[in-house]
Amino acid sequence: MTERAFQDYYDEQVAHCYGCGRLNEHGLHIRSFWEGDEAVTRFRPRPYHTAIPGYVYGGLIASLIDCHSTGAAAAAAYRAEGREMDTEPPLRYVTASLKVDYLKPTPLDAELVVRARFTEIKGRKVVVASSLYAGDVECARGEAVCVQLPDHWLEGTASP
Amino acid sequence: MTERAFQDYYDEQVAHCYGCGRLNEHGLHIRSFWEGDEAVTRFRPRPYHTAIPGYVYGGLIASLIDCHSTGAAAAAAYRAEGREMDTEPPLRYVTASLKVDYLKPTPLDAELVVRARFTEIKGRKVVVASSLYAGDVECARGEAVCVQLPDHWLEGTASP
Repeated sequence: MTERAFQDYYDEQVAHCYGCGRLNEHGLHIRSFWEGDEAVTRFRPRPYHTAIPGYVYGGLIASLIDCHSTGAAAAAAYRAEGREMDTEPPLRYVTASLKVDYLKPTPLDAELVVRARFTEIKGRKVVVASSLYAGDVECARGEAVCVQLPDHWLEGTASP
Repeated sequence: MTERAFQDYYDEQVAHCYGCGRLNEHGLHIRSFWEGDEAVTRFRPRPYHTAIPGYVYGGLIASLIDCHSTGAAAAAAYRAEGREMDTEPPLRYVTASLKVDYLKPTPLDAELVVRARFTEIKGRKVVVASSLYAGDVECARGEAVCVQLPDHWLEGTASP
C-alpha cells in the first residue's frame, strides 16, 4: 500500500469534495491506494450511515464508488502515461455516469473495501469497474465512466 | 402537493435511513410528494456538499435519486393498488440497481428538484426514471430498479 493516497495529490481547488476532499471538514475523506493492479479504498461507515438499522444506506455506497472511481481513474491515467501523480500536467476526473448494483445488504459494523479495475483507458475517458466488500462478501458492484476534468477547472476559474 | 411526505408513512424501524429517515438526526431528511403523476422531492444542498467549489458532489445527487426513488416506488405501488399509504399491508422498497448520468455540473446554491416517473410497476418491482433540475436546467438523470422489501424486514427482525 502506498503511503500517499491518490487524493493527497489533488491541488487545493479540487480538494474540497464532500466525498474525497482532504480539506472538507464535514466530508467522508475517502482515500485510495494502489494494491497491485487494483485501486483500493477502505472505509468504516459511521453509525448514522444507516438504511435499515444495522445496514449501510445506498447513497453512501454510491458515494464511495463514485469518489473512489474518479481518484482511481486519475491514478490509472498517470500510470498509463508512465509518470507519477505529482508531475505536470495534472489529470483530474469527474463522473459522467455511475451504475451501482446492490447485491446484498451491506453491514454497518464492517470495514468496507472497494476494489477497482479498469475496463477502458482511452483519450479523456476511463471506465472503472469496482466491487464493494464487507469481509469476503461482495455487497455491491459499480461501474463509473470518468472523464478528464477540463483544464480551466484546474486553473481556479471554474465555470461549467 | 400533499402535506404528508411519502416517508412520513414509514414505520419506525424503516425511518432511520441517512437519506430519507425522519428519525436520523444526522441525515438528509429527503421528503417526497406527488405532483400529478410525478413524484417530486426538493432539496437544498448544504455548503459542504461540494465537489469542485460551487458545485454539488455526485454522491449527494446519487443519494437524492436513490432515496427519492424508493419512496416514489412505494407511493406508486400503493397508488397502483388503489389504496392510501397508511393502509395495511405496508409496501416498502429498496434499490437493487441505480444508474445516474451526470449531464451538467449542478450548482450548490440552488434548490434541487428531482422529478420521477414510473417505467414499470410489476410484481415486487418498480422502475423509477427521474431527472434532477437546478432551476430549469436538467443536471442529472437517474434510473432506479426498486424491489419490495421482504416482509420480515418490516417485522423488526431484520436480517439479510
